[in-house]
Amino acid sequence: MKLEKLVGDRFKERPSDCQIDSHAIMVRGGYIKYVANGIFSLYTPAKRITRKIEKIIREEMDRIDGQEVQFPVVMPASLWEESGRYSSIGSELLRFSDRNSAPMVLGMTHEEASVQLVREYGQSYSKYPFMIYQIQTKFRDEARPRGGLIRVREFTMKDAYSFHTSQEDLEEYYEKCHKAYERIFKRAGVPEVISVKSDSGMMGGSVSHEFMLLTPVGEDSIAICKECGYSANMEAAASITENTPDEVSAAMETVHTPDLHTIEEVCDFLKLPVNKSCKAVVYQRNSDDSYVVVFLRGDMDVNETKLRNFLGCEIHPAVITEDSGIAAGFIGPVGFDADATVLFDCSLKNANNLCCGANKTDYHCTGLDMKSDCPNAEYHDFAKITEGGICPSCHKHSVTISRGIEVGNIFQLGTKYTKSMNMTYLDSNGQSHNPIMGCYGIGVGRLAASVCEAHHDDYGPIWPMPIAPWQVHICAVRSDDAEVKQCADKLYDTLIGLGAEVIYDDRQVSAGVMFSDADLLGVPLRVIVSPRNLKESCCEISARDKSFSEKVPVEETAKRVTELIKELMDKANS
Amino acid sequence: MKLEKLVGDRFKERPSDCQIDSHAIMVRGGYIKYVANGIFSLYTPAKRITRKIEKIIREEMDRIDGQEVQFPVVMPASLWEESGRYSSIGSELLRFSDRNSAPMVLGMTHEEASVQLVREYGQSYSKYPFMIYQIQTKFRDEARPRGGLIRVREFTMKDAYSFHTSQEDLEEYYEKCHKAYERIFKRAGVPEVISVKSDSGMMGGSVSHEFMLLTPVGEDSIAICKECGYSANMEAAASITENTPDEVSAAMETVHTPDLHTIEEVCDFLKLPVNKSCKAVVYQRNSDDSYVVVFLRGDMDVNETKLRNFLGCEIHPAVITEDSGIAAGFIGPVGFDADATVLFDCSLKNANNLCCGANKTDYHCTGLDMKSDCPNAEYHDFAKITEGGICPSCHKHSVTISRGIEVGNIFQLGTKYTKSMNMTYLDSNGQSHNPIMGCYGIGVGRLAASVCEAHHDDYGPIWPMPIAPWQVHICAVRSDDAEVKQCADKLYDTLIGLGAEVIYDDRQVSAGVMFSDADLLGVPLRVIVSPRNLKESCCEISARDKSFSEKVPVEETAKRVTELIKELMDKANS
Repeated sequence: MKLEKLVGDRFKERPSDCQIDSHAIMVRGGYIKYVANGIFSLYTPAKRITRKIEKIIREEMDRIDGQEVQFPVVMPASLWEESGRYSSIGSELLRFSDRNSAPMVLGMTHEEASVQLVREYGQSYSKYPFMIYQIQTKFRDEARPRGGLIRVREFTMKDAYSFHTSQEDLEEYYEKCHKAYERIFKRAGVPEVISVKSDSGMMGGSVSHEFMLLTPVGEDSIAICKECGYSANMEAAASITENTPDEVSAAMETVHTPDLHTIEEVCDFLKLPVNKSCKAVVYQRNSDDSYVVVFLRGDMDVNETKLRNFLGCEIHPAVITEDSGIAAGFIGPVGFDADATVLFDCSLKNANNLCCGANKTDYHCTGLDMKSDCPNAEYHDFAKITEGGICPSCHKHSVTISRGIEVGNIFQLGTKYTKSMNMTYLDSNGQSHNPIMGCYGIGVGRLAASVCEAHHDDYGPIWPMPIAPWQVHICAVRSDDAEVKQCADKLYDTLIGLGAEVIYDDRQVSAGVMFSDADLLGVPLRVIVSPRNLKESCCEISARDKSFSEKVPVEETAKRVTELIKELMDKANS
Repeated sequence: MKLEKLVGDRFKERPSDCQIDSHAIMVRGGYIKYVANGIFSLYTPAKRITRKIEKIIREEMDRIDGQEVQFPVVMPASLWEESGRYSSIGSELLRFSDRNSAPMVLGMTHEEASVQLVREYGQSYSKYPFMIYQIQTKFRDEARPRGGLIRVREFTMKDAYSFHTSQEDLEEYYEKCHKAYERIFKRAGVPEVISVKSDSGMMGGSVSHEFMLLTPVGEDSIAICKECGYSANMEAAASITENTPDEVSAAMETVHTPDLHTIEEVCDFLKLPVNKSCKAVVYQRNSDDSYVVVFLRGDMDVNETKLRNFLGCEIHPAVITEDSGIAAGFIGPVGFDADATVLFDCSLKNANNLCCGANKTDYHCTGLDMKSDCPNAEYHDFAKITEGGICPSCHKHSVTISRGIEVGNIFQLGTKYTKSMNMTYLDSNGQSHNPIMGCYGIGVGRLAASVCEAHHDDYGPIWPMPIAPWQVHICAVRSDDAEVKQCADKLYDTLIGLGAEVIYDDRQVSAGVMFSDADLLGVPLRVIVSPRNLKESCCEISARDKSFSEKVPVEETAKRVTELIKELMDKANS
């Protein structure tokens, strides 16, 4: 199409409300339009990109025997009551009533709808395994949308659900889907996406992976082992600490520690390294505000996801009241008698000669020996893995922490939904079982924005060929020159005839305006038709990523462009 | 794909809750699954059909220079307040609040969102005309969903919005879009869809057309002239009546008419034909319950849409109270002095010697002469056009009334939205104007169901090739026969290699089960591989619509099938 007719404005200035580059670029380039907090309209270039991503996803889902279906956006609350999630999910599930006061929800995920769709179909073992998927609008009422299409409330997502009669079969399919995801990200131009172990969160189930595009602006923290390649979301990464106890345990003593507010200040005052301290972090359960005290080594932090999963409920940092009996800031494991759940992190195991709170305002103790002073303590993993920490896989001190954007995820769900929603099949012996499920998501808009975040320069995005809004961008510099116009027009027609996707700029604007618009559209190949080039009977073909630029005789230009398109497509699909 | 793996159940019994054939077929054939009132999930066959319809629509919209965009499903109420529709539309607009208590709506149409998207872009006349469209999920909280996908609450719709600087330009584009719609319906296999003039309803604007598939189960009534081809939705069709007054007007007389409740009873008693009566129909305005009395000829009915448009407000049939001063059942135009808006339909013009109510319980009058007794009456068209009535175009008594399903519509909107939402452009003289809009919709799921309604037999749908879920259905009858299995397997692979879309039934089931499943999937071409056919070294190719059946040598079958596919595709696209 002609750039002159392309609906949407492009401009230079970085909008002040855009924190990350991809957001700024997608606003500046006429890709997205703000409608409400976390809600955007897409202009044609963004729509073309997301449709191409959808096509890639669809091909790869079909390749692993997926069957495309469609679930509703609006669902009756009763469906979510069957699984129990109507009450267990927070306000990100948008609930409302229809004209007849029937309670409804906006779909943020479709486990319930998928079970409802196949509950009758899947009554015999002979129907298994099967996978259904959809690509569809979802709504998640995020508290803090951010980053343009990175974290929105309304989004397009591919969500897939597989059904199996054995854990082995699920695992085999899960592995297939993992490979399909790798192909999808490679084809979408981000082969650098890695998969990391993740926490299954509200989805239920056990094993799950997130596909992460590493970038400093990512929202997730990922632990990666430089040595063995282990990787996991920090929420899911096991924290391993080793304590070699001092040979002699000193006797416990109480010390007056007024006006010392942090564990660092206390250790400093007592001339102890921070890892020779036992600190307490206090939470409250959301349901009844009851207290939960986690003791862990002073140099570690609590991983709230682990704590939440252990407790099986939502929690929040505690507000300690006077009548709680808890001496805030001076809590220790010995003599603590307030009404609270007391938990111990593995980082304290075997440690001795620690300082800790004395459960009395302005006093701490020294000489805490976990073995003898807390003989009944059970240790669990509640700590965040740390940079330089021990790898849970190869056990070297080789963990690094990176940031990443989650562009996809896969879950082994088990029977959480089939059990609660009473989906059963009869096996070959006539025995009834609940099928085992897997689910598999990719955010389409987020993937588009992530590609932009990973591949851009100061001037705009550098779209990979398979998802670029167009394949080639013709700039007719000085289109008022009859020869330029004629040559560019002909090239445009020829390329379209050859099946190329062309955006054609024949506006009578300066080369500067033309090139900065082309940069913002980020089309991988650019052909410049100009009086200067035509003097040499050439056109100039260049790559948006600046990897090459070549002059090609006018009559060979179209052919060369189609070769380059094919080359770039093949490279991504190989 | 293999039919054995196709998710969804097929069965023979017509579900008792399905009023129309297409609904029953789409449930019986494993196309749709009920989720809630007016809300369905789609199984793979339906998803494949709707995706093909979407592709046809997209191609035709792109062909008339449409640019595909995407608007949100969830929109802030503020956007609809700008146009005034937040308050003017009834409860079919689903309103709710998000987690921050911000009022939101679910998109049932996107005029507001389209203006919001291009308001800044379209500030100069040089950008015009342009058209943007989307294909997307919508929600309309219908009071009475019915007929499967025919009238639902959640649906996929293509909606397009064009912007112009002159009425002529809009009309020219409107005509282009009209032609594009004709191509779409032809390509989708329903060339019999006709366009009819329609009422613009809540969309605003003046000229509009609906595209109707005529079928006895349709929800709309359409007036069609057998003579000149005029067609209009009954809501929009002008009603023309001719009255030749009797030469002598009799004097007005009051007659005692106790226990006569209908105009027919009164006329019967007075020995007058019904068209010699003046009846009154009473409504109330929704806003304040004030009365509106429409007088019209006894043989005519009120077209409430015309009345609503005339009054510019919503109305409902009146509940006449004792203190209203209205003598219910005995209302007449002479001496009527209750507090009400009084309107006269054109059907009364020039009439004389009519009977009418005497505005006194149990009394009517005879000898009403409109000219002399109601000298100040202004006549407007409030009546329904009738079967055998006068055509508004050729003026012959040639009107027939048919039923139809509305599968698309196009509207000339004017400046209703650009004015209320303050979208302006500067013309070449620097003068500011509001752009003129058109809007153009097609319901994707409804179109699929309509095609099924128009093209089915007792055994299932007969999908036209361009939108069929698959192009060819291979039935391997007696797949336990090694030769059959081998031949069918090879044909399946060959056809896939040739790019055909194949559903392959190699289950070990009876031919009866196989064929009834094939009928329910409605694939246009069927190839039967059976021991009997193979004895003659043949396969049998037949059409779902029974138009042909031929035996083809095994080795020529694949080629012949691809020829037939091409033939059927070309026929639809020609």
